[in-house]
Amino acid sequence: MIVKLCRTALFIALLGFCGVAPAAQAQAPDPLPSWNEGPMKQGIVDFVTKVTTKGGPDYVAPQDRIATFDNDGTLWVEQPLYTQFVFAIDQVKAMSDKHPEWKTKEPFKSVLAGDPDVLASAGEGGAAQIMAVTHSGMSTVEFNDIVADWLKTAKHPRFKRAYPDLTYQPMLELLEYLRANGFKTFIVSGGGQEFMRVFTDKAYGIPPWQVVGSSGKTEYRVWDASPSLVKLPEVQFVNDGPGKPEGINRYIGRQPIFAFGNSDGDKEMLEWTANCKGLCFMGLVHHTDGVREYAYGADSHVGKLTDELLDHADAYGWSVVDMKKDWKTIFPSDTPRP
Amino acid sequence: MIVKLCRTALFIALLGFCGVAPAAQAQAPDPLPSWNEGPMKQGIVDFVTKVTTKGGPDYVAPQDRIATFDNDGTLWVEQPLYTQFVFAIDQVKAMSDKHPEWKTKEPFKSVLAGDPDVLASAGEGGAAQIMAVTHSGMSTVEFNDIVADWLKTAKHPRFKRAYPDLTYQPMLELLEYLRANGFKTFIVSGGGQEFMRVFTDKAYGIPPWQVVGSSGKTEYRVWDASPSLVKLPEVQFVNDGPGKPEGINRYIGRQPIFAFGNSDGDKEMLEWTANCKGLCFMGLVHHTDGVREYAYGADSHVGKLTDELLDHADAYGWSVVDMKKDWKTIFPSDTPRP
Repeated sequence: MIVKLCRTALFIALLGFCGVAPAAQAQAPDPLPSWNEGPMKQGIVDFVTKVTTKGGPDYVAPQDRIATFDNDGTLWVEQPLYTQFVFAIDQVKAMSDKHPEWKTKEPFKSVLAGDPDVLASAGEGGAAQIMAVTHSGMSTVEFNDIVADWLKTAKHPRFKRAYPDLTYQPMLELLEYLRANGFKTFIVSGGGQEFMRVFTDKAYGIPPWQVVGSSGKTEYRVWDASPSLVKLPEVQFVNDGPGKPEGINRYIGRQPIFAFGNSDGDKEMLEWTANCKGLCFMGLVHHTDGVREYAYGADSHVGKLTDELLDHADAYGWSVVDMKKDWKTIFPSDTPRP
Repeated sequence: MIVKLCRTALFIALLGFCGVAPAAQAQAPDPLPSWNEGPMKQGIVDFVTKVTTKGGPDYVAPQDRIATFDNDGTLWVEQPLYTQFVFAIDQVKAMSDKHPEWKTKEPFKSVLAGDPDVLASAGEGGAAQIMAVTHSGMSTVEFNDIVADWLKTAKHPRFKRAYPDLTYQPMLELLEYLRANGFKTFIVSGGGQEFMRVFTDKAYGIPPWQVVGSSGKTEYRVWDASPSLVKLPEVQFVNDGPGKPEGINRYIGRQPIFAFGNSDGDKEMLEWTANCKGLCFMGLVHHTDGVREYAYGADSHVGKLTDELLDHADAYGWSVVDMKKDWKTIFPSDTPRP
């Protein structure tokens, strides 16, 4: 008797009847409530519906549902300066007591003097120096702790919030929506992967091995039977521009069918994604909202998005988010509570 | 009424009553049936039980249950020659029509002459040359196809089976047992990651982004709007010895608490794992079964396991599998069907 009851119970449960209580018979809740209705949102939903419809012409098996996202400017704020660079500047200041020579030596002199345009004035070489001194000479574990401590206290100059609170609510919903539809979500960013991994799990629900970024060399050392990885001031891999498809191949090892970026550094990732066998989705976030966030494009030092890439997107049917028009809310704390 | 029935049905199903048919009320099935009873098997089960017992002193949250496995000699056969090297030799033969100069040029001359000890006679430089010519000059997609085709037809010289059928049944059970207990399983191998990823998903249930290995450089090229990654004859990263903790940091980004290897090249991975905060498990496969598989150790060209490392394992409480004694079956097709 118990067996028969169980079979019946399981049968009812498996058939899914049990989810269909009267209250739930209404429409399923909108998985993307922070996206305004329009072609952009509809395009995402149509794509996901098509690739998950079994027996449909565009069906993609779950193991091939790979989605890649740039981080700075795509998943969180990157203006007025990449967060990791803000961290580096703060570290230079924190370390300056031990480096009296920095007071007279560029690019450190400008950093210590509080030059707001230090990224531009330091140039590529200066920026690399600032990154190198602040991202090496300690173990990977020590570096993680330094970043974690900094993220707890540092505040964005305009929004006066901790940086991990300046992720984009619509993109958080998109990540969750994709995962709920069997996608694996990856970050593929020019940012340092060790820096990102300190917060990406909590902020985006993305575990460290799904976070691909630029990296420095490390050296394995054993002192008193205690091993550590020491961070060296040498670049291992730059995961930007053409480095993004390379990083995707190296770290993910499977062709994405969905990718989102926001700048010229994402062009190759989107191009690579567009090369998928079936249906693919390529998206760009265009920062058009100077009131709620920032408005920038071809003229920006940070997250440059040229008209050429926008034209390319248009020609090849890539989707472009108009932040002002497409996003109902920007940051999680702006979300109206139900 | 339907709602009430559903609640009851779900309740019964959720409580798990439905799995408890009389036949199943006996002990849960052994998750490691190919392991003989003994301290080795018991050690694994005890470890997994402890780190998954909520409220226990050794409990580890699921997100920190990271397990890393070497591949050659740990998950599948590596004698008489690493499979990837067998592939490279076959490729040299297949490519030799287009390279008449190889007939008189070492190390290719020896390969074409069928020298069985070519790995040893070619030396490190010669082996690197053989790997370089067979693993570059094509796109990553083309390379995958070449490997996939080869794996379909190539047979192991002694066992006369396809290489993916020469995985170790006890280790397949261990991978599955760990995953069933909330672990994420990773491969951390000196082998080429692009080579491994062709079969690791199907053979071990491990997706490509959880396969860490050595890699060559690639170059992103776009021809006629069609992008590809061309494999270059340059090493990007050697994931062996001290490279294994580096690879773990770079690709996984989290401290393992469980690791298995079989040779001196795994020492640093096990040492790194032993540095975990709580309870950790370090294991070595000792190939002691010349009848069913191979017996080798310090004197082997392939998968060398020195007495020094065995002593180290003993001193630090690492577990050593005695293949002959601990494994009931070796290969999946040897498994007695129930």
